Amino acid sequence: MTTAKVSPKKTKKAKDILLFASPNNSSDMRWFTNFSCGDAFLAFTARGKKIAAITLLEIVRFRQQSGFDVVLDFGAELAKLRETNPSANTPELIAHFAKRYKVSSWTVPADFPAGLFVKLHQLGVKLSVGSSPFFPQRVIKTEEELEKIRAGNRAACAGFKAVEKILKESVIDKKGFVNWQGKTLTSETLRAAIDHACLDEGGINVEGLIAAAGDQGADCHCSGFGPIRANQLIVCDIFPRIAATGYFGDMTRTYLKGKASPEQRKLVETVKKAHDKAMLNVRAGIAGYDVYKSTVEFFANAGYKTGVVDGAPTGFFHGLGHGVGLDVHEAPNLGGRSVMTDPLRENMVVTIEPGLYYPGIGGCRIEDVVVVRKDGCELLSKHPYKWEIA
Amino acid sequence: MTTAKVSPKKTKKAKDILLFASPNNSSDMRWFTNFSCGDAFLAFTARGKKIAAITLLEIVRFRQQSGFDVVLDFGAELAKLRETNPSANTPELIAHFAKRYKVSSWTVPADFPAGLFVKLHQLGVKLSVGSSPFFPQRVIKTEEELEKIRAGNRAACAGFKAVEKILKESVIDKKGFVNWQGKTLTSETLRAAIDHACLDEGGINVEGLIAAAGDQGADCHCSGFGPIRANQLIVCDIFPRIAATGYFGDMTRTYLKGKASPEQRKLVETVKKAHDKAMLNVRAGIAGYDVYKSTVEFFANAGYKTGVVDGAPTGFFHGLGHGVGLDVHEAPNLGGRSVMTDPLRENMVVTIEPGLYYPGIGGCRIEDVVVVRKDGCELLSKHPYKWEIA
Repeated sequence: MTTAKVSPKKTKKAKDILLFASPNNSSDMRWFTNFSCGDAFLAFTARGKKIAAITLLEIVRFRQQSGFDVVLDFGAELAKLRETNPSANTPELIAHFAKRYKVSSWTVPADFPAGLFVKLHQLGVKLSVGSSPFFPQRVIKTEEELEKIRAGNRAACAGFKAVEKILKESVIDKKGFVNWQGKTLTSETLRAAIDHACLDEGGINVEGLIAAAGDQGADCHCSGFGPIRANQLIVCDIFPRIAATGYFGDMTRTYLKGKASPEQRKLVETVKKAHDKAMLNVRAGIAGYDVYKSTVEFFANAGYKTGVVDGAPTGFFHGLGHGVGLDVHEAPNLGGRSVMTDPLRENMVVTIEPGLYYPGIGGCRIEDVVVVRKDGCELLSKHPYKWEIA
Repeated sequence: MTTAKVSPKKTKKAKDILLFASPNNSSDMRWFTNFSCGDAFLAFTARGKKIAAITLLEIVRFRQQSGFDVVLDFGAELAKLRETNPSANTPELIAHFAKRYKVSSWTVPADFPAGLFVKLHQLGVKLSVGSSPFFPQRVIKTEEELEKIRAGNRAACAGFKAVEKILKESVIDKKGFVNWQGKTLTSETLRAAIDHACLDEGGINVEGLIAAAGDQGADCHCSGFGPIRANQLIVCDIFPRIAATGYFGDMTRTYLKGKASPEQRKLVETVKKAHDKAMLNVRAGIAGYDVYKSTVEFFANAGYKTGVVDGAPTGFFHGLGHGVGLDVHEAPNLGGRSVMTDPLRENMVVTIEPGLYYPGIGGCRIEDVVVVRKDGCELLSKHPYKWEIA
């Protein structure tokens, strides 16, 4: 039984790696192959070469886009192997490749499929599980990647503009609901408007897009549903993926149609102050956890308690931020349950998203994306913070 | 080392199962928990109960939606465990749960993360890898699921209507390009129109949506890019996921703006005949592979050769169809490289999608979704087959 490598040795010699995944589900696979498709395929290194085995349906484009040294027709290779081993399938083919390319062992990502891992082990293929993240290089972004993340955030901004336009055009009806174009405004209508606006910027919102008002917004991952009342905080969290590049944006703004109560105003202003403060703290060398911790203290000093009340979490009960790139949540993590005590490094990309949530008052979260620089950080997302819309 | 179960014993006693996945990436997890979120969490069975451990961010909605018997606060459980084992993490917590709930062994899905599998093995937790599909019940659809798949196909149809409207409104310019609203029509414009139309029906097109003309359409998974010429076959393959339910539709129509050549006309008509023929063949009891095989023979008899020409696959080089549900590609498979010799069963759902692809002529694919019934099959997708638009 091979051993999981929890912390990789500083590379003496590059280890050969093996991936079997769909690039649409595995950002490591997408990053490694520079290719996008829905079905899983095989990619590995051997003797300094990048080798893939992929179906005929993808092979022409894969040859054009991936820059791989050897691109094999998976089906033809399997058919050939079945001439001598009629019951051969993917594991036997991988074992065959291990011999053909003289690979003594492969390192696989932590999310490599266990079923295939076990079968390869039975076939005598030596595997070890790599560290997480599997490609530590992905954590440090290139200028080209930063531009792709900016594009993701521009798509998110198109969503905010759509929301602001609707809230400005809306009126408040006699029953206290927000009314747009003669109909009661719903979370669903807002989300649809956001979706369309993002699409026009090349961004696709998969599940999870949030436009949640009142107590729904106080449940910080609720997508929101049904009619929206005036004078309710409306949390809008938009994280579109740019279809052409695979990179995400991730931003949150909180709105209110009508007139805020003093409690709501204090809540929003406190979150904004926490956001400003965190922005000033983030720089290369500081631990992500320390930035998180000082936000926790700031909220506590401002009188905002965090804890579970009647089974529902309240206060500031999530992390301060997370890495963004080909995954919407990736390393590094800025605090919360997963402690990240390593110092932030130049050209890491993280969200800064303090939030406060209290049923009865509502929720507020303000989220931007920054790139960590030597002496501070630089916004990769730009959109105003105006939130109260009369 | 536990052994992979290739074919599960007929259940004497239900085995306990363990999943660790994001429902947005794992349809088994979505099906098992009836819940949707982006981050991975833990779900398992023990002593006849369904148990989950999930973060505070999701816990309130998970309790409401999942119907699970026990829903634990993952962070609080981990914090408690760290009082006695400061370096505890997910694997140690799972090992702790195995003891607390007296689980002797768990079966995990084939795509369970290998890193976690190895660590649990080291901690003495007994695991075996289950069969694929992990939940064989998912292959047989309920009437409720059929309705959700129909909704997915209705979203796809909205996409076709958008394409047809654009092609009808378009003119052919002097250089032979299709011109819409004063601009040369591109694949990107068509895909954007499809995306917006699907959204209005609640469907999201993730990566892979195809609107590919001419030789791009002959590469059967190319998404298509750039200007579209008149008299080119345009393959439109639309597989939106309904955001509210997670179920997919999956349909393909092939169009042409202008006037088809005799070769193009014969190609399209032959594909349509193959489609009709396969529709007549599909019924409970027939092997999926046999339906595929008779399509292969039909094309061969009609003079359409399949093979690799100049490195590019030509002819009918993909399967005849695949299951559709919470995954856009799921069991069962109708032929192609993966042979499926088991008989189709009542209420399985499959696509029927014969296609022919020849650079120079172009590609044509016609795809519908059917539910297998006792004496035949029933369409879950309804849209006309008119393809030549003057």
